[in-house]
Amino acid sequence: MKIDGKPYRSIWVNEDGWSAGIIDQTRLPHEFVTLRLATLEEAARAIETMLVRGAPLIGATAAYGMALAMQDDPSDDALKAAYDRLARTRPTAVNLRWALDAMMAALKPLGANARAEAAYAKAAEICDEDVEMNRRIGEHGLPLIRAAAAKKQGEPVNVLTHCNAGWLATVDWGTATSPIYQAHDAGIPVHVWVDETRPRNQGASLTAWELGHHGVPHTVIADNVGGHIMQHGMVDLCITGTDRTTATGDVANKIGTYLKALAAHDNGVPFYVALPSPTIDWTIDDGLTSIPIEQRAAEEVSRITGRTASGRIETVTITPEGSPAANYAFDVTPSRLVTGLITERGIAGASRDGLAALFPEHARR
Amino acid sequence: MKIDGKPYRSIWVNEDGWSAGIIDQTRLPHEFVTLRLATLEEAARAIETMLVRGAPLIGATAAYGMALAMQDDPSDDALKAAYDRLARTRPTAVNLRWALDAMMAALKPLGANARAEAAYAKAAEICDEDVEMNRRIGEHGLPLIRAAAAKKQGEPVNVLTHCNAGWLATVDWGTATSPIYQAHDAGIPVHVWVDETRPRNQGASLTAWELGHHGVPHTVIADNVGGHIMQHGMVDLCITGTDRTTATGDVANKIGTYLKALAAHDNGVPFYVALPSPTIDWTIDDGLTSIPIEQRAAEEVSRITGRTASGRIETVTITPEGSPAANYAFDVTPSRLVTGLITERGIAGASRDGLAALFPEHARR
Repeated sequence: MKIDGKPYRSIWVNEDGWSAGIIDQTRLPHEFVTLRLATLEEAARAIETMLVRGAPLIGATAAYGMALAMQDDPSDDALKAAYDRLARTRPTAVNLRWALDAMMAALKPLGANARAEAAYAKAAEICDEDVEMNRRIGEHGLPLIRAAAAKKQGEPVNVLTHCNAGWLATVDWGTATSPIYQAHDAGIPVHVWVDETRPRNQGASLTAWELGHHGVPHTVIADNVGGHIMQHGMVDLCITGTDRTTATGDVANKIGTYLKALAAHDNGVPFYVALPSPTIDWTIDDGLTSIPIEQRAAEEVSRITGRTASGRIETVTITPEGSPAANYAFDVTPSRLVTGLITERGIAGASRDGLAALFPEHARR
Repeated sequence: MKIDGKPYRSIWVNEDGWSAGIIDQTRLPHEFVTLRLATLEEAARAIETMLVRGAPLIGATAAYGMALAMQDDPSDDALKAAYDRLARTRPTAVNLRWALDAMMAALKPLGANARAEAAYAKAAEICDEDVEMNRRIGEHGLPLIRAAAAKKQGEPVNVLTHCNAGWLATVDWGTATSPIYQAHDAGIPVHVWVDETRPRNQGASLTAWELGHHGVPHTVIADNVGGHIMQHGMVDLCITGTDRTTATGDVANKIGTYLKALAAHDNGVPFYVALPSPTIDWTIDDGLTSIPIEQRAAEEVSRITGRTASGRIETVTITPEGSPAANYAFDVTPSRLVTGLITERGIAGASRDGLAALFPEHARR
């Protein structure tokens, strides 16, 4: 997508032809800084310290980490060491392991002198596949926005989203944001309600930033607001991302998604979830009992980082001394509250039958 | 309630016998500072600058503002000037006008030399009435917690609350917190999930502070978390306050209350609202269409104040430059989602019949 008119992806190969470029996402939304990754170790640290985040982008960064390692030393030992180093960066990211396995499968059979070139080609392929999958999600979601626009007679279509399922979390387009960007680029007037998404504020800091720099009208709201604006007809549809979807259409996503789905259901607002099919866990039926919910550090709740009036980045504590805080990072939205799942193959009903119809190769009889 | 073992109200007469004492609530939770109000103007400014907040406490502070004015000059002109000055402090607070009218009715008929003493007596009466009403709310709510405790075999009863309907918002006890304090003081193990309540964070900054200093176990959570913990049986009941209740039991309260009520309903968790009956608006039937929702400054969403590692109080901006924010301050929870209304006369069903049974003098035929 564009940053102030200039097209970007969230990861790229620099003009030198071999080092990788990324956006330092820890400094958003306050500073836009790009970084150059020139070694395996720099790529690994970029993932560990969350300079890059979002499952698809982590996978892509790991792929370029392997390419950087092969550029330096294409031996069998170096290949294995690179895989191990990168696999340790984030313990639970499924795409990370998937990308590393894909790189390993492509490189291991090759002679050492062919590996660097093949690694860059494979990393580029991984990135392009992600972009293409997200582009298709947008293509399938676009008619939802177009249909809403037809009823609004020139007024903007109001889409509510939660957290960041945007292009910064992927290589390009994003998942939940892909239909929004495609609608905007097609000239359909669209306005996005951006849940700030406490405690880590990915909505206010990342989604608002990327929408703003691409030129999409949007408004940041506290996570408490979604119900009220749905009660008053100010939301035409909701689109969120998901970290994991069950074979029956239950959706695990950033904490608070469930509350918005309840409000959408109570007010007759369509609630869609956008996802690339690799995030469907075909082995799980009941999201509520089967998906473990990560508990993260209490400090993410009790502290918050922003910029002071003088432009300094500062972290402040907002809870009383001695008051504990709990930080459940995700919740599960039952399929009964989900209008549809926007995938790269089309929109599936949030049910076993709905998913099986689009992905028959995974359907269990 | 107690602050580290010492009993406090949120407003009191100092040992000098005439000046009023308050807690500077703008400095909570980071600093506990009491202030002395010695003039009408100081009382008016305390309300305007939100050193004191919460409808009942605003009314009580205005009453002492009248008393301070009479102490200085008990003339008819001074009486009218004090009323006008205080009435201007907060435009929409119903209790403010009610307290000022009560003071005026008590003082105007008196000779000037009797007014100061009568003013202090009437202000004390207004405070004591508030305390007594809240104590009774707690008395009627206590059996709910006691009944939940009976099922938990020594495990704490988990109560979720939103915003600050605590003793800091009233003169003592609070409304939603009154059953909680009474349960705690009666030795019933109780634990409170405190919604931080963005954007102004009254939960994290005031409710957590007062619970902690009274010794009530509690955990601060992001506003997004309530649904998840209700799905997993971690909430036994919800109790919130309300700013305005309709004759049919719809409840206007801090933004986000509706989302928690939806989650409670979806998970079979009882959802109670605690209120003194003067906050019932007997003239309104439909909360959603008839209660105007205040929109406040966007800066309350885009900025947040806390203390730095070095102890300095600092305000930081957390949204991107150029991203607008919207700040709807309240929402309306329809009566169908409310299990009961805890009033000073008992628990009413959230319906016209339920309220009419407890308050027949207000019932419309």
